[in-house]
Amino acid sequence: MTKHDLSLFSAVQSAEAIKQGRISSEALVEACLARIEETDSKVRAWAYLDAASALDQARELDRIRKSGRGIGALHGVPVGLKDIIDTKDMLTQRGSPIFAGRQPDVDARLVEHLREAGAVIMGKTKTTEFAFMHPTDTTNPLDADRTPGGSSSGSAAAVAARHVPIAVGTQTGGSVIRPASFCGVYGFKPSRGTISRSGVFRTSESLDHIGGFANSLEDIALLTDVLSSYDQTDPASFARPRGNMLDGVRAEAPVEPNVAWLDFPFNDRLDADAEEGINALMDRLGGRIERFSASPQLADLIHVHKTIYDYEMRQNMAAVAESNWPDLSVEMQSAIDRGAEISTAQYEDALAVKTSAQGFFADYFNDFDAILAPASTGEAVPLTAGHTGDSVFCLTWTLAGLPSLTLPLLVGLNDLPIGVQLIGAAEEDDRLLRTASWIQRSLAEQEH
Amino acid sequence: MTKHDLSLFSAVQSAEAIKQGRISSEALVEACLARIEETDSKVRAWAYLDAASALDQARELDRIRKSGRGIGALHGVPVGLKDIIDTKDMLTQRGSPIFAGRQPDVDARLVEHLREAGAVIMGKTKTTEFAFMHPTDTTNPLDADRTPGGSSSGSAAAVAARHVPIAVGTQTGGSVIRPASFCGVYGFKPSRGTISRSGVFRTSESLDHIGGFANSLEDIALLTDVLSSYDQTDPASFARPRGNMLDGVRAEAPVEPNVAWLDFPFNDRLDADAEEGINALMDRLGGRIERFSASPQLADLIHVHKTIYDYEMRQNMAAVAESNWPDLSVEMQSAIDRGAEISTAQYEDALAVKTSAQGFFADYFNDFDAILAPASTGEAVPLTAGHTGDSVFCLTWTLAGLPSLTLPLLVGLNDLPIGVQLIGAAEEDDRLLRTASWIQRSLAEQEH
Repeated sequence: MTKHDLSLFSAVQSAEAIKQGRISSEALVEACLARIEETDSKVRAWAYLDAASALDQARELDRIRKSGRGIGALHGVPVGLKDIIDTKDMLTQRGSPIFAGRQPDVDARLVEHLREAGAVIMGKTKTTEFAFMHPTDTTNPLDADRTPGGSSSGSAAAVAARHVPIAVGTQTGGSVIRPASFCGVYGFKPSRGTISRSGVFRTSESLDHIGGFANSLEDIALLTDVLSSYDQTDPASFARPRGNMLDGVRAEAPVEPNVAWLDFPFNDRLDADAEEGINALMDRLGGRIERFSASPQLADLIHVHKTIYDYEMRQNMAAVAESNWPDLSVEMQSAIDRGAEISTAQYEDALAVKTSAQGFFADYFNDFDAILAPASTGEAVPLTAGHTGDSVFCLTWTLAGLPSLTLPLLVGLNDLPIGVQLIGAAEEDDRLLRTASWIQRSLAEQEH
Repeated sequence: MTKHDLSLFSAVQSAEAIKQGRISSEALVEACLARIEETDSKVRAWAYLDAASALDQARELDRIRKSGRGIGALHGVPVGLKDIIDTKDMLTQRGSPIFAGRQPDVDARLVEHLREAGAVIMGKTKTTEFAFMHPTDTTNPLDADRTPGGSSSGSAAAVAARHVPIAVGTQTGGSVIRPASFCGVYGFKPSRGTISRSGVFRTSESLDHIGGFANSLEDIALLTDVLSSYDQTDPASFARPRGNMLDGVRAEAPVEPNVAWLDFPFNDRLDADAEEGINALMDRLGGRIERFSASPQLADLIHVHKTIYDYEMRQNMAAVAESNWPDLSVEMQSAIDRGAEISTAQYEDALAVKTSAQGFFADYFNDFDAILAPASTGEAVPLTAGHTGDSVFCLTWTLAGLPSLTLPLLVGLNDLPIGVQLIGAAEEDDRLLRTASWIQRSLAEQEH
């Protein structure tokens, strides 16, 4: 690791250096490929990687820069894509043997944005089966005996292992926030409808979100700015302006933010070291934090989430399940069976509760800039557990479609990272990033 | 016209004032609607206008701003759309009785971008029949006895009449540049593939382009930045970064630009006052201009353009023509008949010449920053001529897919405006805008 190891450059830093001609995209991609070569036999973050194609893209982007043509916001910067996101030039196999060798004809909408921004599409990162529960063979780059978390296992691991500075994932339960927490990176799931899901495997219309991973808040913001767009073919997408995330991260908070903490009954699932870490962190933030008890209705939202997920998953998996039942994991088979037990009336009730939860949170953020919450139960769980960890601390916010961010602020008993989650007002993602930036700065200043 | 007449605000100025809360979008839209109310019985720029919808959009955008949510680049700024651009909430009738009452189900891709940028979709502006030759009843806002030019007649007239600060048009021959010249506004047709044509009526796959109208270079740039994107569903669209146009307009030229002028045989179609004006302008730019004679091959490109246009128009109109022949204009019927006379071999030869012309121009701009050319034969022609003017000075550049801009720099014998066209290197639209900005500044400085 010399100071010239470009794989340690952030996306913001790389894009700036490439724009100014101080480094080439080719050199950056080479450094990332070298890092992958060196570590991926252990990490196993990649489902599809074509070094030659990545280098070709990089050289073409270098050529464009030298020709004086347009420079994109991610010009020459490599990015990883979770393997449920369609790419017309790379396999997209959805973490299932059923789709082994599947080659889409068209790019997902978000891939169009990445290409337009000049990103180098490095490859596809491993996903749990259909972005649900059955694990990949990906290991945590910080401890090869532990899970990187899921379902965006490869995206989180690739960013933590410095294979790429940024990667795209998805979250229906806790599939961005949890792996980011386990891998010690930043993870961000923007408000529902911010990023188009067209061309991304659908598991749940009501709950699926796109999100990103990075090693800094600024990179998270830059990636989100590139990915965000209105897309009428995605029913969740909204035809309104999105705030500028990078401006959000770089903005000064007009006043010191107010942060809420909610005591949920399921908070007892938090590991002791995580609880201790969060309490210490809240002490340090002192007067900015107010603690509340979650109402029974609020605490029940995790069950509402499950009803909707199981019901919609069964619908979306119906065609695949019919002809490939034996090739589905037990986890998936059970979810589909559970979905079959849910009546349309139960499902519709759940959707109604979801809507009223959104209404509740719309008002909530008049008084608070963010909710602080655990991102995971604690450190990454061992691979021997056979699962990618508990997503309970993410479900409420995913259900309500709120922007959720995790910051790698804590360290657990085994010296492994634990994230801290911040949740903001719907469609005020830039404000959430501004608050996160304030919290991070304010903690850093205390350390000096 | 007091200093408070918001209909005189530029798009850049309006967006900034709305962002800062100095004016509301509602007040801006009201001012534009008042201007329309006052003058459109004479100008007849609008094919579809729904004042209530425009005001609703404006109020919603004002509400979003006050709520602290994202502010788009065109937040609250009204825009007009040529009536061949599909909108899911407004009729899109293509300037033909055949499509009277036609209501699309989806927005054109470029309309998605406008909505995401927070623009107010004011309505649909009149187009000649299928953006081809048969005129609308729109009149030139500067002289009601003259044509506004075509085919983007309503978009040019609406911007000139200050009904909206910006409007979108299309160009297959000279349908942006010529009407902009006749109406005394800025018109810009970016490089082929810069702006998606998905959801826009197709007349010629090889020649159709999207372009914009405004009353300033900065507004042209801002509008183009919002509209530009990679769209894999448009075969012309390129998966590369676009230069930032607003940065281009605002940039200082690193050295004084070199400009070329080409003598074409068809330059004898230029009116005497236009020729005199251009010569005087070139004198003022002095040493920056080099004059050349166009080679016979170059001069012949206008015929290649015609071959491709007629052939592809016939293909694209085939289904419509079959069932609606009597409802087509004579101009369209003749074009379709001409198209039928062109053999596939002739068409393919023409495409091959087009490709080699693109190659020729790719090298050309190593030596020159821009080509200067007439935008129209002169002032707007009288309505009694029965057509929207001669597009000969645009065809070469449209064929080659080069970015083309017209600046309202000249005044003719009847005190009517005449545009001056600047053409740049493909996919270096920001450099062309920088050059245009330099020329404009340098001429203005001479006047002081």
